[in-house]
Amino acid sequence: MKINYNFLVLKDSYLFSLIAKKVNEYKQQNPEKDVIRLGIGDVTLPLVPAVVEAMHKAVSEMGSADTFKGYGEEQGYGFLRQAVCDYYAKKGVKLDTSEVFISDGAKSDIGNILDIFDSANTVIIPDPVYPVYVDTNIMAGRKIKFINGNKENNFLPLPDGKTEGDIVYICSPNNPTGAVYIKEQLKIWVDWALERDAVILFDSAYEVFIKDESLPTSIFQIPGARNCAIEFCSLSKTAGFTGTRCGYTVIPHELVRDKVPLNKLWLRRQTTKFNGVPYIVQRGAEAVFTEAGMNQIKEQINYYLGNASIIADTLTDLGIWFTGGTNSPYIWLKCPNNMSSWEFFDFLLNNCSIVGTPGAGFGDNGEGYFRLTAFGNRKNVVEAMDRIKMMII
Amino acid sequence: MKINYNFLVLKDSYLFSLIAKKVNEYKQQNPEKDVIRLGIGDVTLPLVPAVVEAMHKAVSEMGSADTFKGYGEEQGYGFLRQAVCDYYAKKGVKLDTSEVFISDGAKSDIGNILDIFDSANTVIIPDPVYPVYVDTNIMAGRKIKFINGNKENNFLPLPDGKTEGDIVYICSPNNPTGAVYIKEQLKIWVDWALERDAVILFDSAYEVFIKDESLPTSIFQIPGARNCAIEFCSLSKTAGFTGTRCGYTVIPHELVRDKVPLNKLWLRRQTTKFNGVPYIVQRGAEAVFTEAGMNQIKEQINYYLGNASIIADTLTDLGIWFTGGTNSPYIWLKCPNNMSSWEFFDFLLNNCSIVGTPGAGFGDNGEGYFRLTAFGNRKNVVEAMDRIKMMII
Repeated sequence: MKINYNFLVLKDSYLFSLIAKKVNEYKQQNPEKDVIRLGIGDVTLPLVPAVVEAMHKAVSEMGSADTFKGYGEEQGYGFLRQAVCDYYAKKGVKLDTSEVFISDGAKSDIGNILDIFDSANTVIIPDPVYPVYVDTNIMAGRKIKFINGNKENNFLPLPDGKTEGDIVYICSPNNPTGAVYIKEQLKIWVDWALERDAVILFDSAYEVFIKDESLPTSIFQIPGARNCAIEFCSLSKTAGFTGTRCGYTVIPHELVRDKVPLNKLWLRRQTTKFNGVPYIVQRGAEAVFTEAGMNQIKEQINYYLGNASIIADTLTDLGIWFTGGTNSPYIWLKCPNNMSSWEFFDFLLNNCSIVGTPGAGFGDNGEGYFRLTAFGNRKNVVEAMDRIKMMII
Repeated sequence: MKINYNFLVLKDSYLFSLIAKKVNEYKQQNPEKDVIRLGIGDVTLPLVPAVVEAMHKAVSEMGSADTFKGYGEEQGYGFLRQAVCDYYAKKGVKLDTSEVFISDGAKSDIGNILDIFDSANTVIIPDPVYPVYVDTNIMAGRKIKFINGNKENNFLPLPDGKTEGDIVYICSPNNPTGAVYIKEQLKIWVDWALERDAVILFDSAYEVFIKDESLPTSIFQIPGARNCAIEFCSLSKTAGFTGTRCGYTVIPHELVRDKVPLNKLWLRRQTTKFNGVPYIVQRGAEAVFTEAGMNQIKEQINYYLGNASIIADTLTDLGIWFTGGTNSPYIWLKCPNNMSSWEFFDFLLNNCSIVGTPGAGFGDNGEGYFRLTAFGNRKNVVEAMDRIKMMII
């Protein structure tokens, strides 16, 4: 009996536990202070009425023999896959329902998709990065090459003449940097992938925050992407589904490697190792894509973007360099006075009673940077920015 | 770019598509016939009132800012893990909540658990078998040895002096055979595993159908099992959750291999590649374990067991050999007159308008056998048995 020794190579992540420890200590020493959390990566607004109504209806259906639903297709109900296709059609992207796989969220799919690739492939991952991309590949023993996001490329790395690999992760709008690739930049990645039969794993979990219509909200808006890309999206941030769990993955039929359609491999993986998303949740997700649902979530997205804008304006006033803040719920700032990520964390906590996330937690290139998020409530965001303005001049 | 070539070794399963094709042809040729399906592996009774009520309440909570739930712990809410521990306590099994992992179902966990084991391990799988055990291991390129279930051992294979391997799958009550191991038999497996540091993957998805109190409903009722077993269970058949999706996996802290606790490896796997079960579903699952919920599901289980009993009595009257039928929703019968599995399928369909599942679809040792299930409605089961009595004498 041998365990998977690759697990022993994983680094323990102390990021959020260390943050919690420091915040608790600060609170004990300063019980009178009102601590504002701008590090939170979770939504705070509730599910919209259209979703709540649809799920109540679905719960009632499940309680009656004539409307009860047992096993559904592992890849999701047709009604929801069609709703996703209709959503993409509005972006100018034509999909067949058989190219859409409903799942319990982008995190699961981004991890599980690796099942269909040989572990000998080399993976390219931008640094800084969502840690799941790294850890899932370490678990499979895959070789990882990092490419640098930095101030010079606005944290939007592109391949250069030396970039070689089989699989590349791209997240746009990016977590943690909030940076968004323009179409011409994504085209460079698509051409790079097509030239060497690589596959792009495109994480579009934050696409709904894009308001600038010139920016791509799907990799499939880029010519050639149907031959080289898989797209992962989620309703977690789109519609507050972080605790409700629903996402979708798109694999075009043209995406063929070793003469095998990857769509077919993923279907086999999912039908073997997954049993579908709850019917109740799929009905809730369907409601997101209705006209009422879309209008309701738009209000929430605008609320979060309003928060982001307040943070961005403050940083601009203070002359602090940052990415994100528009078309994204994340703001990624250069720590003032050349502070390290953790120095700035302590500075903000001790002087402003504000909690954020040290950039160093997202990779080596995150050192000296800091992530703020727009998922808090407006009053706290305004108050936090007032405090920062008082301390940093 | 290389795909995972192990996928190309997977056999296409034509079992259920071939059944569907034959049934459709029969219906077209015999539009006046009332076809009864006794092959169905899905529940037909709706969710019980306690579950429906709990889920309505949870849906409402999700729609209000002050009760909204975002990300929960990947391994499940404490309230549900505690409810599972309390359920085990009634079986005489003491568990800590940190040993319980809530998931979207046993199928996912049974597949995904393999991530924590080296692919060089040898796996022992009984034949006939739930096909997921086989396919998930083929996908990982693992060596599989089959052990024979047959009439001689009542389809309850045990290790003999030559049985060697690192991981063994045991499902009791069994799908497809309905056979149930007694404690002394499971003890043989536990001792076998302890002697060679192997791991038992114990699938207890049908434990709630056990009425005979002398039979084990958990591997952890067997001394030593905490050092060698992982147990997978599901509310799919327990409480009609096939379309609602909730299960749980138990990994005791004593289960250590290569000096690493497997509980810790699975926690890392789940926190990296999974994001938890919907809050709404976890509240529904919690309700299953309440006194009201338990009483309500007991009625449903008794209804299905009543169906099983009617089928079993008919087969006994006809002198047809079978396993299951008590303490299980499955009945596994020897095809009469030495018919092959598919010959008997055609015979039942053409002469009785009854659909079942050919045993050959569950492995080589299933040839000559046939699976009937108890998940249909009572009237149909009685009618089906009347038809069979008329045809087989």
